[in-house]
Amino acid sequence: MPLAVVNCSQLVTLAGPARPRVGAEMRELSIIADGAMLVSDGTVERVGARREIEALMSGDCEVVDAGGRVVLPGFVDAHAHPVFAGTRVDEYELRALGATYQEIAASGGGIRSTVRRTRAATEDELVASCRRYSEWFLRTGTTTVEAKSGYGLSLEDELKILRAIRRLDSETQLNYVPSFLGAHDVPEEYRARREAYVALLIEEMLPRVAEEKLAEYCDVFCEEKVFTTDESWRILSEARCHGLGLRVHADQLSLSGGAQLAAELHAQTADHLEHTDAAGINALKEAGVQPVLLPGSVYALGHTRYPAAREMIEAGLAVVLATDFNPGSSPTPSMPIVLSLASTHLRMTPAEALTAATVNAAYSLGRGDSIGSLETGKRADFVIHDCADWREVAYFFGLEHARATYVAGRPVTLK
Amino acid sequence: MPLAVVNCSQLVTLAGPARPRVGAEMRELSIIADGAMLVSDGTVERVGARREIEALMSGDCEVVDAGGRVVLPGFVDAHAHPVFAGTRVDEYELRALGATYQEIAASGGGIRSTVRRTRAATEDELVASCRRYSEWFLRTGTTTVEAKSGYGLSLEDELKILRAIRRLDSETQLNYVPSFLGAHDVPEEYRARREAYVALLIEEMLPRVAEEKLAEYCDVFCEEKVFTTDESWRILSEARCHGLGLRVHADQLSLSGGAQLAAELHAQTADHLEHTDAAGINALKEAGVQPVLLPGSVYALGHTRYPAAREMIEAGLAVVLATDFNPGSSPTPSMPIVLSLASTHLRMTPAEALTAATVNAAYSLGRGDSIGSLETGKRADFVIHDCADWREVAYFFGLEHARATYVAGRPVTLK
Repeated sequence: MPLAVVNCSQLVTLAGPARPRVGAEMRELSIIADGAMLVSDGTVERVGARREIEALMSGDCEVVDAGGRVVLPGFVDAHAHPVFAGTRVDEYELRALGATYQEIAASGGGIRSTVRRTRAATEDELVASCRRYSEWFLRTGTTTVEAKSGYGLSLEDELKILRAIRRLDSETQLNYVPSFLGAHDVPEEYRARREAYVALLIEEMLPRVAEEKLAEYCDVFCEEKVFTTDESWRILSEARCHGLGLRVHADQLSLSGGAQLAAELHAQTADHLEHTDAAGINALKEAGVQPVLLPGSVYALGHTRYPAAREMIEAGLAVVLATDFNPGSSPTPSMPIVLSLASTHLRMTPAEALTAATVNAAYSLGRGDSIGSLETGKRADFVIHDCADWREVAYFFGLEHARATYVAGRPVTLK
Repeated sequence: MPLAVVNCSQLVTLAGPARPRVGAEMRELSIIADGAMLVSDGTVERVGARREIEALMSGDCEVVDAGGRVVLPGFVDAHAHPVFAGTRVDEYELRALGATYQEIAASGGGIRSTVRRTRAATEDELVASCRRYSEWFLRTGTTTVEAKSGYGLSLEDELKILRAIRRLDSETQLNYVPSFLGAHDVPEEYRARREAYVALLIEEMLPRVAEEKLAEYCDVFCEEKVFTTDESWRILSEARCHGLGLRVHADQLSLSGGAQLAAELHAQTADHLEHTDAAGINALKEAGVQPVLLPGSVYALGHTRYPAAREMIEAGLAVVLATDFNPGSSPTPSMPIVLSLASTHLRMTPAEALTAATVNAAYSLGRGDSIGSLETGKRADFVIHDCADWREVAYFFGLEHARATYVAGRPVTLK
């Protein structure tokens, strides 16, 4: 049955050129005051002023009254690690008392503890426990999430996580875009022979992941003490040969050459970039790589060095914002709190932040033609937020303003 | 009808000595695993292990099954400005682009714009618009909030705000503790003759507020460019003569002597304290003043200088955390996001933060005997949070984990 969404104080469409938005374009949201939208077959048929849409409404149309609230496209979260077992709430306590993320990792905590627990969980257990996070994403207004593996670090465990992602995609209303991140860390058992782990990644894991079509992207944690730029280059080059798109964890904890590497490889994205310098920004610009900024992890680690978002926007980069949802450095699935961080600590305007969290994020996942804005022909992923001014979604922070989330025109049912 | 709350994975009681908690006491939460609670006449009758409570349950008892979730006392938010008209979402945009709070204020924005709008609103309009914020407090697990006036800055407008607070207290389930903050700023029309405004505060406003019993506390914004320590001393001394308790906005933007003043006056609290030095901390300790820390405003202003919480705890101060909810510098009513900020940026442990947000906050409002912990004889203000480990309430940040809020044993009904 066709759907008409009416009585939106602001229908924020993000309509615009069919490509990632840069510079001043990031501040153009194409907002329709007192707007309405027609949806059929799960797809946006038309957006417009209320009268215009009312004139087109047929008798059998189901009407969704937004009640004078704001309607936004569903957020697209382009960097997340949403499949893991256990939490790391214990470390939260240690960090509160001053231990650094690196100190905790060196003492066997950190990612290694999540790897131990994730390896011990079955695929069914992972799917069951991670449904909770699916609900959180949907509840806070996100309709598509990129999902990285990377807490398995063995062939079978990485496959298990990617299969869990596939099941979560089909069994929940949240849409998942799978990325293979076998190069998230060098696992314990390979510490003394890291070269053998790189070989395992290249010779066994990547071919298998590609063969089973379990991932669209390959990501590598490129950082001095994790994977060097040389190792990262080898892994990502191989991934490309298997038809995977490329994403890179770059320059998070130090200026280790990740942004330069992403540029050399013409990766789809370079993510984090807290320590990227002007040369790195230029390199990304020249190569057309999208930066994915993750202020949630800067915040949650208690750091104060945020990525240079303004410089990136002024350089003409098509900036993306994402949660980095994970149990260690960014335990939040909330795009609204990321938008808040962007405006309070990254000096992005609310409009730039929203563009980065929707349409630009969609392009960074190769889905710019189908999601990220409310335009004719795109999937009807939209969210009614309980405010009269869309900027309140981030301004009144720490709240869940989403009142109803729709995926492909269907309301999301939460427990 | 008596109430039994059962099946709590953790019943976090905060039971302990009948006074504010200091030092290591702040890390003792008296958690009952698989706990239960009996409530009668809106009051906690008994807490204990499930079996112990089940043995005491009578036949006519209404049972609330917490479903294996966490139960915490309702948060007590000891510093908020929850009655105002309009928002300041426009300034949020200016600040994102680099304007400082002081620059915005100097150009006629900031608090003055909220004063203009609040003066233009009727008492009925204020009550109607601020019910939304009442819901937000309750929805995020807060059951008592301190509420300051201070956006009126004229006799009639300050009285109007305090009457609106009284009505919100009686017409919603949230409990309000009113504070008179006529000395929030020098209003426009008194800029050239600030002495006359201080006289108005002392000679007309305070006597009238006291006579109508509209406030329990008097607060002053003591800051170089707002009210000097001398002016603050005169206003607060007069307030004491009228039987009001004293609170002080101290050392927020500079080391202006506010903490020392609060100590000299033996105020109940000194609030903010971002710039307080070791001498100020010692003075607060000697005088038994409770510090109220407001990391939400540091965050939302994009600042990085947080108050020295660890030093205060180590000095033996009974630290309190609060939201500072207001439309300019801290647009959040969420105590969970404040707990998150405390652990990520104030280096408080989760347990210290929870103590600061409940029982210590209750003492700072003169209500330590009736709220802030779940102990026999206290009001049954409690919240079921949807987690199995209470620390997740702050760890998974940006979410609303509260599933059900009870005030005096009655479930809160939200729109």
